[in-house]
Order: sequence, then structure tokens, then C-alpha cells
Amino acid sequence: MKIAVKMAWKGLGNTWTNPRVGAVIVKDGRLVASGYHHQFGEHHAEIDALSNVPDAESVKGATMYVTMEPCSHFGKTPPCSDRLIKEGFKRVVVGQVDPNPIVAGKGIERLRNSGVEVEILGTTTALNEAYNFYYERQRPMVTIKYAMSLDGKINQQSGRRTIISGEEAQADSQKLRRMNQAILVGERTFKTDDPRLTVRGLEKRFQPVRIILVRDANSVTPDKRLFENESPVWILSSQSAHRQFPDFVHVFVKDEWRPNDVLALLSEHHLQSLLVEGGSQIQAEFVRANLVDQLVTYVAPIVIGGTGLPAVSGVSDGRLTHFEAPEVTQLGHDLKITVRRAR
Amino acid sequence: MKIAVKMAWKGLGNTWTNPRVGAVIVKDGRLVASGYHHQFGEHHAEIDALSNVPDAESVKGATMYVTMEPCSHFGKTPPCSDRLIKEGFKRVVVGQVDPNPIVAGKGIERLRNSGVEVEILGTTTALNEAYNFYYERQRPMVTIKYAMSLDGKINQQSGRRTIISGEEAQADSQKLRRMNQAILVGERTFKTDDPRLTVRGLEKRFQPVRIILVRDANSVTPDKRLFENESPVWILSSQSAHRQFPDFVHVFVKDEWRPNDVLALLSEHHLQSLLVEGGSQIQAEFVRANLVDQLVTYVAPIVIGGTGLPAVSGVSDGRLTHFEAPEVTQLGHDLKITVRRAR
Repeated sequence: MKIAVKMAWKGLGNTWTNPRVGAVIVKDGRLVASGYHHQFGEHHAEIDALSNVPDAESVKGATMYVTMEPCSHFGKTPPCSDRLIKEGFKRVVVGQVDPNPIVAGKGIERLRNSGVEVEILGTTTALNEAYNFYYERQRPMVTIKYAMSLDGKINQQSGRRTIISGEEAQADSQKLRRMNQAILVGERTFKTDDPRLTVRGLEKRFQPVRIILVRDANSVTPDKRLFENESPVWILSSQSAHRQFPDFVHVFVKDEWRPNDVLALLSEHHLQSLLVEGGSQIQAEFVRANLVDQLVTYVAPIVIGGTGLPAVSGVSDGRLTHFEAPEVTQLGHDLKITVRRAR
Repeated sequence: MKIAVKMAWKGLGNTWTNPRVGAVIVKDGRLVASGYHHQFGEHHAEIDALSNVPDAESVKGATMYVTMEPCSHFGKTPPCSDRLIKEGFKRVVVGQVDPNPIVAGKGIERLRNSGVEVEILGTTTALNEAYNFYYERQRPMVTIKYAMSLDGKINQQSGRRTIISGEEAQADSQKLRRMNQAILVGERTFKTDDPRLTVRGLEKRFQPVRIILVRDANSVTPDKRLFENESPVWILSSQSAHRQFPDFVHVFVKDEWRPNDVLALLSEHHLQSLLVEGGSQIQAEFVRANLVDQLVTYVAPIVIGGTGLPAVSGVSDGRLTHFEAPEVTQLGHDLKITVRRAR
């Protein structure tokens, strides 16, 4: 299963809303073949592994280790469970049950009904944290990310960009973007930082959907760096747009965009994860709505001082949000602190 | 020298403004005796080690390892260098030169002039960070300490105390107090938190001087927990006091108490270290005055949200203060981040 997990991670950046899955075929204690889900729309891991076996005979009576339950439905590809039965597997060891309701145990049932032994380990959920979250909690998983000083500031002053993180932390934040299917920034961050919101310098077939939350879509000018790249942009606006935008830009209009409205829109589009990248006010809104599932902060060894902009500032309901014990890593001179919501 | 350093640390909490010093006597490759400076006003480490030797003969021609240069002056005790010469030591290995101008190499000179070999290692300065700082920089070393949330807040709202740290971090902050000769809080922290500002649960003969900075000393009521204990309290006030305070309380009056004024007062009293324990505004003043030599923050895995009180808030000169790469330790669910001013 460890090898299968390693294989699964090879799909990072490319499986989009599909889970990352790896598979290994073992017969008589020897590894026959391995495979993984390379890319959204392509073969599942089980089929990929089967495409690597020397001959049909070498899988008869074999065991397959697969990080997620084989599917039971006709989607972009026929059901993997049927194929495993047909190939004559004796046993299938499953890393985790697929929480997607179109599978959700039906793949395992199908295998067992055909006399295939199935063992469920429950050890591979970390491979697809947002995917699992989305189907278990019926909404996208929200990560808030900010770089701050030791006094909890993200900016020297509102309206002016301050570079806080060193190179290592900046590179790491690209990895965090790649782990998410959508990235959100508020109007002030959009206008102050002029971000591209793309994943740079890393292998990926799919860019996250780039979402900006603005009062009036017509105030968004085409010279912004967001438009340098043609991956999808969503503009969430309170005013309908008269301005003509390129095809990769979609404008969604609603009087008010509260955090829950943003998540509902993502769910409609089957997006499982959202990275909130500022600013201070949007972060305060997600905190108040109790919608922060994970928080990642890059802390730089600087102090900004008395008039800097706090990491979270604006609305509040006065309650504390508690997280699990932090994971800390040193990135150059910066610290990366990651916490998950306390259960 | 490693053993001498270990011995020196035994004086922690008890040597007051004297340095922590340890000494080890070695003859013919064997440890003859060891000692340390137990307490302010008592024997120096060298003399303590000598009091542990079996007979005068066993130090003739011996080597002494001592973490700081033996003194050359008549203070509360006669000069140690003279004693070492008299006892017939052949060689003295010194951890660091004493930066105190009344010694500052004169002890070493005295030994060498009498034919004692002296070797200076320069490896033991961490034993007495504030002592060294004070004599090298001519002012006390300032440490700012606060407990904050992941969004850089120290309080849910001004005027109401929020318990942020867990037990381990709270216990650790007592150790930090013990490392300092004075502790300062501002008026709002004094009135909101009603702190005792004492070192609790740890071995110590001397409590730090407890300093509160208030507009009017007459507003300080005797029911405060600060007065439960009789270790020294300094009230820095802009108004002279009509109110009668107990003997252990001293009121210092000055129109305005800026950070530099506080440090000048400490220097007058030969205090080498100051721990600033809040609040937000006092911290901002020390940051603006560029007087933060060390910063210790205990980060709890909570988010306070939009209306919480930032760790540093108030005045600013718009400059960033840079620190060295942080040291991080996990204390229960909290993180302790320690940084020193970048050189």
C-alpha cells in the first residue's frame, strides 16, 4: 500500500476534481505491476496498473492494492470493479472507501458479490483530504493562508503591498495553491497586490479557478495581471457587468456574497477546495462564519509595528476558533504553521 | 569547561545582577573540585571551588576552568585573580572576558603578570546574555513577550483579559521572568489583567523589579494583586503621588516616560534586563524606538478574529524590525517562537 500511495501522489496537479489514486498488483509475494490515475479524464489507477502487466496470466489469482475503492459506475471510463472481477483477482486491498455517493461502498460490494476478497485499511485518506471533506461535509474544504510578521500583521498599511515572506515560503505557497481547486481574494487584495493567482514553477495540468470578490465587476480593468493567463477567472460581483471580458472570465452576480454563498457556488461546480488568500477582511468574514477548516500562516522574523494591517480584521462574533496542535516547518528564515480545525 | 558551564547554571535565579559563573579545578587530568557562584553577595565561583578541594597541595600547579574571567577588584569579596596566584595555579582557562569595566581584562592581566598561563575560549557568553549586553551596549537588554493567537491577537477586546496560552506555555513564561531583572507592563494591562508579575514555582532568591507605567500613580489602588508580595515595585507616573504606598513601592515621576527613559532609569539602578509584558501600545512604543533586542511569542492554535486586539498596536514609524531566524519549540498545543535582533 505504501508503494500505491507513492504512485498516487504522481497525479498531483493533474487529477483535478478526481481523487489521486495509486494501484499495485502483487502475485506470489512479488510486485507484478503498478499504476496511478495520471490525469482527469484518463484511466483510473487500476486500469493503468493492468496496462503494465506482462500478460493476462500474471494477474489471475493476484492481489491488488489500491488507495481508494474501485469504482462501480460508468463515468468517463467503465467500472473498475467489473474489470478486476473479469481479470480474475483473488483479493483487493483498499486504502479507503470512496465517499463519493455514486460509489460509496458499491464497488466493494460488487467485488465481494463476485467472490473477490476485499480488505479495507482506512489508511490513505491524507491523499485526498479535500475530496473526502467535500463528500463527507457536503461543501468545499476552506484553507486560509497568509504571510504575517511576528506581530500578526500582513501589511505595513492598507493599500500598499509589503513583501513579508522569503523565497522558500513563497515557493511553498505555490504548492498550497496547487492543492486547491479555487483561490479567492477580496477586492482590496486584488487591487493592491495585482496577483496572478496561478500555480507557477510546478507540474500541473489544471490551474485553480481564480475568484475575485468585488463590489462592481465593471471596476475590474483588463490591464490586471490576472488576465495574463487564460485559466478560469470568476468575478463575484454585486453589480451586473456591462464591461466585455474574455471567454475565460465568468461574472456571477448576487447582492451580497457571504462566505456561504461562495461555497454554495463552488459546490454547484463540484469544486472541493478553496484557498482564501486575503485580505484581512475576507479572512475575518470566513472566521466569523466559522468556515476555516485549515489555516496556513507563514511567519517571517520581522515586526511591522503599531499601524500595520492585522492578518484578520473587521467583523467578528466574539468567539474563538480552536484548532488542533500546529505542524511547524522552517522555510529559510520563515516558519510555516499549519493547523486544522479542532473536532 | 562544559562541567563549569553546568555548575554556573546552578546559580540561576540567585545571582541577581552578578553573572552566573562556574569553576572546575583539574590536576594531572583529574577533576579535583568544582564550584559556582551561588548567590549575589556570596563567594565567587573560583573561591567556591577552592572551598571544595581536599588540601592546599592538590591545587598547586593545577588548572582552573572558569566560565568568566576571575575578578581583579575588591568588591563584596577580595579579587579572585590574586587568590588563584597565591594558591599556585599553573594555568587558568577562561570561558569569556568579563565585560564589566571594573574587570575587563585586568583579571587576566594580573594572572599573566604573575606567570600564570591564561587561555581565553570565548565559548560561554550564552550563560549571561543580558549581563554581556548591558556592558557592551551600555543599556539593559529588552525582551518583549506576548501570547498571541494565529491571527496575531493578544486579547478578544481591549479591557478584558483573554487566556490564550496553555499550561506549558504559562509555566515557560515564568522561566522567562526569572531570566530578567525587571518586568514592565503598561497601565491598561495592569488594570485589565491585575498581574502579580512575580516568578512563581521556580527556585529564585531575587524577584525581578515589577514596573508599571501609569499616567497617575494616585489611580493605583492597594487592592491590586501586585501588592500581595513585597518584592520591589516601581510606579512610573506622570503625576506625583499623594497616596501612601508600602515601603517596597517606589514612585518615579516624569512628565513623559518614553522607552529610553525607562531604560535610563534601569541603568541608573544597574539593572541589566527588562521584560516587557504588554500591552499592545507599550509594545508598539518599544518597537518604534527600535529597542526590541529579543522577542518571545507564545502562539496558541486559536483564531480570535476581526475585532481582537493586535499584539502590537498604536504608534509606528513605518519601518520593519528584522530579526534572526527564529527558534521554535512546541509547548503543549502552543508554539514558542524566540527571535533575536538581526545584527
